Amino acid sequence: MQALVLEAKDRLALREIAIPETIGSHDVRIAIHTVGICGSDVHYYTHGAIGPFVVRAPMVLGHEASGTVVEAGAEVEHPAVGDRVCMEPGIPDPNSRAARLGLYNLDPAVRFWATPPVHGVLRPTVVHPAAFTFKLPDSVSFAEGAMVEPLAVGMHAATKARLQPGDLAVVMGAGPIGMVTALAALAGGCSQVVITDVQQPKLDLAASLGPIRPVNVAQENLVDVIHAMTGGWGADVVFECSGNERAAAGVFGPLRPGGTVVFVGMPMHPIAYDVATAATKEPRVEHVFRYAHVYPRALALMGSGKIDVKPLITNTFGFDESVAAFDFAVQMPPSSVKAQIVLEA
Amino acid sequence: MQALVLEAKDRLALREIAIPETIGSHDVRIAIHTVGICGSDVHYYTHGAIGPFVVRAPMVLGHEASGTVVEAGAEVEHPAVGDRVCMEPGIPDPNSRAARLGLYNLDPAVRFWATPPVHGVLRPTVVHPAAFTFKLPDSVSFAEGAMVEPLAVGMHAATKARLQPGDLAVVMGAGPIGMVTALAALAGGCSQVVITDVQQPKLDLAASLGPIRPVNVAQENLVDVIHAMTGGWGADVVFECSGNERAAAGVFGPLRPGGTVVFVGMPMHPIAYDVATAATKEPRVEHVFRYAHVYPRALALMGSGKIDVKPLITNTFGFDESVAAFDFAVQMPPSSVKAQIVLEA
Amino acid sequence: MQALVLEAKDRLALREIAIPETIGSHDVRIAIHTVGICGSDVHYYTHGAIGPFVVRAPMVLGHEASGTVVEAGAEVEHPAVGDRVCMEPGIPDPNSRAARLGLYNLDPAVRFWATPPVHGVLRPTVVHPAAFTFKLPDSVSFAEGAMVEPLAVGMHAATKARLQPGDLAVVMGAGPIGMVTALAALAGGCSQVVITDVQQPKLDLAASLGPIRPVNVAQENLVDVIHAMTGGWGADVVFECSGNERAAAGVFGPLRPGGTVVFVGMPMHPIAYDVATAATKEPRVEHVFRYAHVYPRALALMGSGKIDVKPLITNTFGFDESVAAFDFAVQMPPSSVKAQIVLEA
Amino acid sequence: MQALVLEAKDRLALREIAIPETIGSHDVRIAIHTVGICGSDVHYYTHGAIGPFVVRAPMVLGHEASGTVVEAGAEVEHPAVGDRVCMEPGIPDPNSRAARLGLYNLDPAVRFWATPPVHGVLRPTVVHPAAFTFKLPDSVSFAEGAMVEPLAVGMHAATKARLQPGDLAVVMGAGPIGMVTALAALAGGCSQVVITDVQQPKLDLAASLGPIRPVNVAQENLVDVIHAMTGGWGADVVFECSGNERAAAGVFGPLRPGGTVVFVGMPMHPIAYDVATAATKEPRVEHVFRYAHVYPRALALMGSGKIDVKPLITNTFGFDESVAAFDFAVQMPPSSVKAQIVLEA
Repeated sequence: MQALVLEAKDRLALREIAIPETIGSHDVRIAIHTVGICGSDVHYYTHGAIGPFVVRAPMVLGHEASGTVVEAGAEVEHPAVGDRVCMEPGIPDPNSRAARLGLYNLDPAVRFWATPPVHGVLRPTVVHPAAFTFKLPDSVSFAEGAMVEPLAVGMHAATKARLQPGDLAVVMGAGPIGMVTALAALAGGCSQVVITDVQQPKLDLAASLGPIRPVNVAQENLVDVIHAMTGGWGADVVFECSGNERAAAGVFGPLRPGGTVVFVGMPMHPIAYDVATAATKEPRVEHVFRYAHVYPRALALMGSGKIDVKPLITNTFGFDESVAAFDFAVQMPPSSVKAQIVLEA
Repeated sequence: MQALVLEAKDRLALREIAIPETIGSHDVRIAIHTVGICGSDVHYYTHGAIGPFVVRAPMVLGHEASGTVVEAGAEVEHPAVGDRVCMEPGIPDPNSRAARLGLYNLDPAVRFWATPPVHGVLRPTVVHPAAFTFKLPDSVSFAEGAMVEPLAVGMHAATKARLQPGDLAVVMGAGPIGMVTALAALAGGCSQVVITDVQQPKLDLAASLGPIRPVNVAQENLVDVIHAMTGGWGADVVFECSGNERAAAGVFGPLRPGGTVVFVGMPMHPIAYDVATAATKEPRVEHVFRYAHVYPRALALMGSGKIDVKPLITNTFGFDESVAAFDFAVQMPPSSVKAQIVLEA
Repeated sequence: MQALVLEAKDRLALREIAIPETIGSHDVRIAIHTVGICGSDVHYYTHGAIGPFVVRAPMVLGHEASGTVVEAGAEVEHPAVGDRVCMEPGIPDPNSRAARLGLYNLDPAVRFWATPPVHGVLRPTVVHPAAFTFKLPDSVSFAEGAMVEPLAVGMHAATKARLQPGDLAVVMGAGPIGMVTALAALAGGCSQVVITDVQQPKLDLAASLGPIRPVNVAQENLVDVIHAMTGGWGADVVFECSGNERAAAGVFGPLRPGGTVVFVGMPMHPIAYDVATAATKEPRVEHVFRYAHVYPRALALMGSGKIDVKPLITNTFGFDESVAAFDFAVQMPPSSVKAQIVLEA
Repeated sequence: MQALVLEAKDRLALREIAIPETIGSHDVRIAIHTVGICGSDVHYYTHGAIGPFVVRAPMVLGHEASGTVVEAGAEVEHPAVGDRVCMEPGIPDPNSRAARLGLYNLDPAVRFWATPPVHGVLRPTVVHPAAFTFKLPDSVSFAEGAMVEPLAVGMHAATKARLQPGDLAVVMGAGPIGMVTALAALAGGCSQVVITDVQQPKLDLAASLGPIRPVNVAQENLVDVIHAMTGGWGADVVFECSGNERAAAGVFGPLRPGGTVVFVGMPMHPIAYDVATAATKEPRVEHVFRYAHVYPRALALMGSGKIDVKPLITNTFGFDESVAAFDFAVQMPPSSVKAQIVLEA
């Protein structure tokens, strides 16, 4: 089949590749419609590796996908052929110790699309377990369906935060993950979100998405803003989505006593973490690794209108423009959030 | 001062009454603006008692109130004179064992407005602890401010539910408490609420408030509806707000395995609770008694536009119409939700 | 093979029965050593059914078992042939919706030993998934290993209670499940347990197991005892293990504000549950259905000496005495707790 | 009165000092019996400050105390004159925002004994709020009563960990706080504790306290030990009690997926915290600052025999030997854990 193949670092080609896939009794075959470009796809393109995951053989990119079921295994009850769907890109071993506890995303044996040596889905079809394939509500487009994957990270972060109705949250970083985390936090109970960045166009876009107060940290001091808003008390939750070491070291500053920090971004290097200062607030600190159990929840919130990801889809390319799409994504302008590739018209 | 006084069962008078109040160093004096009529006020009027609380002396009614601070004690930092505010009607002993644990609503020594022998606030002014007096956001009117008290019950219920983003909730009963619980559940993370009642006008109103699916249980079977919506799995949370013994006995039917039940309504008699059947779903069951810690959260959600209680304020009376207002509330038409009395123009 | 077969209500026979079992790649074959007699086994014997589960064909009894691995499937990593083990008697579908969430005990498709139509293990060997077969620590005997199944119920109850170190717990009912719940509660953090019953020999035994205060409710009032012990505050947790409707209706009496109730026993009929009275304490109420994830935890506590179940094993029978053992269990004297059948010397 | 006064850095004197104290209606006056020497007392002695807290005027040391009530304010219900008691050394403002939420230890206005400018209790008597004065069970000696304060830190850590029955915990550091954390973790539900240090005498003492496995990290690799014990899975909880930056940076190594880290020790400098590596296990991280709500729980566990702190009291001095006691504590041999000063015979 025709696919977008990462041959090696810096070498991307839209070309024929043989990916033999037989459909099992609990699987479905999906015709891919739309695939979003993730930062990790771009990183494999530009670096050939992410940490211990090294691209050693040609690999198809793409894991943020929606499509249509075209074939269903013998024992599949749902989804049905013809259903519009999106898919969780990670497939765990249901009998692993982590999966048995409900922590299937933490199973080290998870096979994840476009993580070497597993092929991604920038290709016409894929075979996938029905249990990780989710029907889109009628009101949710393919483009939005392909946004469920990044949104799931924000949903998982908001779930880990155990938000209480009316919480005030800070989201550090207004990149795609910061944006979806802000949306998930608002849908998940926050009264308001304060979002930070140094790129004003991103902050302007964020501010248009709901009760979101942008803070350009090149111009304003976040702790001062939060103290002014809360009478010196602090924010209930801080989501660190920037992945920036310096920002991440400052998560406790704007936090209230007894508040919660969720690390979402992945700094390249260890951060400076001041235990003694943090202790005086007794924060709870949570971490997220991808997501688990949130796809149906994300779709429910999109279906009922509580989350709208359409403003985040800023750039759309055809399948034949895939290489150009990636080159665009490598040097994304600050006003862009998410680029997608559409395989079917 | 002039006040609405319940002289005894069935006897209500707008008349002069002396309520000597000195202002302490941590208190404020509030000029009352708007007072909502609660079912409990009506019940004292028509029955002269609620359970062990018996009206043995003339008592001023009303506890859902907003107003303006007109005087502040020496050590009060906020709110300030001139601030528009609403007030928690219960005052706990901060040194009680329950209060020390953060459970101040469970302190048996709580003094609560319009609960014998404590006077309510259908009168020109009241002295109240500053710590239980909350400034209204600019965008929140006095009428909405007087709705915070009933909304706080729904907020407390939604908080106890520990909602996860995207939950599907059932609210049994579309009275005022069912309505505010539905609003709080949606603001608190639910993707959708299914609300039940037998009065169609209430259901129609509820359906206009957001992604709320009305179920007239005189015509539809709730369990069937939920099973159809969830592929036989069940709802994540069931809020019992009807106070009806038969409805309350059925909370586990529409619930999913591992789901949560919150009892909000107060049935007059013990309900039939089938432990053996419930057990197969291992539900967590929570109870609410008034509320704690939620006033600022309710105001934050109203201020940011995530909760709009205005559609619930269906009837407004002048202070001089107070007795008529109560007589109206005694026989409220199904299309009415909340009646309020305005003391100041 | 030779097995203890329930032919029909009241008819039990030790006789040959063919149970063809092939061993899968993830299974082990276990030579059964010891099997405890559970109240449910006895109930099938005397009533031929438990609720919807009706014995319609000859069925081998027994599900509280220990033994030795005699054969292991090709992909089994542990346990190994020769390992002394105990087994979880319920096998869920790991791909079910409940199992994926970690709630595998709530999967309606669970196949459970000695629950019609699934055979139990009062027979020489059984094939079982390795993932539900647990190696016994060296210090744990086969007799103790066969006690892990009932202990697991108490462990699950103690886990659901989310005990805090130093909690005071009430356990209602000093039958086998009450006993193991008391042991699990003490091992799980309680400083002390108050246990109730009307049979003095059971209470005397319970009192010998640790810091357990027996209350014979035919002679003492439980609420009075708890109030005296806690200065009127109440117990942190109440475990209802009696299955008695009247006892179960009284769970809130001895509870502190903000305390927790865990229903463990299964009353035959719905209980009278007073929502309005309960509400003033805002209890959290939990239910247990069998158990999940606790076998390794129970074994760890037995292995380290924190739980000792040996005093609960009051009667031991040979395999050839199996019918007599069941007749004994039908009319168990109050000084007996658990009868076991030993298949191997 | 005669008191142990820190005049300034390195200058300690047992001398007369005037501390005028009037007893309020909710206070008691306590005759001090025993006072333990804490690392913070020693640090004020040797450095004259701890972080922002600087000794600028003569200050009485000591905050780990037990004694006897000799006078009670007019409204005190308990404890009574003659009661043997221990005391929480921190007094919060019950009306603070943190205290109202139940987080009274996080109230910045807390007044804490022997924290400048507040005097400690190495003196004959002190006046203290009855609400923070706790009666000792009959079986608990004054020496053990003076151990409740350090034990409370371990209890608070064990409570924050939300232990499940049967957890395996690692305690990093076998100093006094590591020791009491290990005891609290075992009492709070752990099946076993692995404790680390480089001082073998401390490890030997720890190993004698219960199912505690010592690991001398100068000789053994902690991660290897835990992997061997758990089949590569990891420990459920890691308590960091060493305060050592390098140890603290390694908390995630021995942890299982979905496990919990509690930071108890206070490293002098920020630690290197590897967010990306930690994330793959999605740990929950908790911090403790002193303690709240645990004194009665610690006493209950000591009273029922589940916690025995006597082996930790290794050195006892008379009041007249106080300066020598501190000089001993400055250079504590590795076989010593806790030194106490006895004021009354």
